[in-house]
Amino acid sequence: MNSNSSIFFNRLPDPLVIVLSGPSGVGKDAILNRLKEQKYPFEFITTMTTRPQRVNEKQDDYNFVSVEKFQVLLNNNGLLEWAQVYGNLYGVPKQPVKEALSKGKDTIIKVDVQGAANIKRIMPDAVFIFISPPSLEELSKRLIQRHSETSTSQAARLKAAEDEIRQSSQFDYIVCNQCNEIDLAVQQIQAIITAEKCRVNPRHIIL
Amino acid sequence: MNSNSSIFFNRLPDPLVIVLSGPSGVGKDAILNRLKEQKYPFEFITTMTTRPQRVNEKQDDYNFVSVEKFQVLLNNNGLLEWAQVYGNLYGVPKQPVKEALSKGKDTIIKVDVQGAANIKRIMPDAVFIFISPPSLEELSKRLIQRHSETSTSQAARLKAAEDEIRQSSQFDYIVCNQCNEIDLAVQQIQAIITAEKCRVNPRHIIL
Repeated sequence: MNSNSSIFFNRLPDPLVIVLSGPSGVGKDAILNRLKEQKYPFEFITTMTTRPQRVNEKQDDYNFVSVEKFQVLLNNNGLLEWAQVYGNLYGVPKQPVKEALSKGKDTIIKVDVQGAANIKRIMPDAVFIFISPPSLEELSKRLIQRHSETSTSQAARLKAAEDEIRQSSQFDYIVCNQCNEIDLAVQQIQAIITAEKCRVNPRHIIL
Repeated sequence: MNSNSSIFFNRLPDPLVIVLSGPSGVGKDAILNRLKEQKYPFEFITTMTTRPQRVNEKQDDYNFVSVEKFQVLLNNNGLLEWAQVYGNLYGVPKQPVKEALSKGKDTIIKVDVQGAANIKRIMPDAVFIFISPPSLEELSKRLIQRHSETSTSQAARLKAAEDEIRQSSQFDYIVCNQCNEIDLAVQQIQAIITAEKCRVNPRHIIL
């Protein structure tokens, strides 16, 4: 057997960076929490934000920081991507992604659609998954149930969702988060990760 | 909501054509039989061959036909691909693939590596999965256990397997069929099919 063919036997694939995105209210956090309950070991990168923590929101959902702390990381080139959304700062820290990759661990980054586009420019070989609502009407219902926003801000989010759904063509995969079928969405995301690890031309993340 | 965005909601993906290939003795039939036991509904296209049926081989494994019958299909452009291997004729009938696709049903074609290369030329948008042995030593063991061949023909198959493993770079995915872990291989193939159905740029089979 020559060394060329040996790569095909029991090869250990490179760790993946999976970028999960989709409109506000589509259920990204619920999907992520379910993924965390599975056996699949991955590093989850929490987005930092300067916006105030919502009622019923856990510290896990975002890393809530002061504007000053955010600025320090930004000035030290410590953010993978960052943006100002609805007047608040959001950013993905670079260091935990680097650390996970060096340990050979898959990394999941939850980020808004604008953030995913920024990450794609610097890490085109990440796996980009767009979580889609079954319909805009359903998304509207979910935003209303959230009870955390004014109707003006809900309307703004719905308008943004329409624009974001148009941008989903820039992603690799679309997973539809059906009402009451979150397990199906989680199963599809796990299938995507498994399939990506079987690719003949594996992705190589350079960071 | 405009018509452009509506395609992303609950879309019914096009049926897939999945080409399963790999060296002789790697376990393609065992994997297929396990796939047939699952709930996933697919059309399986049986390869036609003029070679004699082996002891312990089921009629399901191949469609064993006479040279005359094979020639009739060949002359009527009724084969998706065909080849002469070890002096026998092998071919994939076109009609059942067309019928399955018209019914929106996924189709699995089991074919040797040369056949997969032929199919890729005429159906580049099929999903090409290479089943790999964990090692050439393990493949050699399996061929010996088959008890159906002379040691000369086993040696020829092993030499062919080495060449075929080199050709696996032309496939989309590699699934390693570990000893005693056929369920893992089946699960990976199912994950690949699920992931392919979530692709933003779906495959379109034209036949």
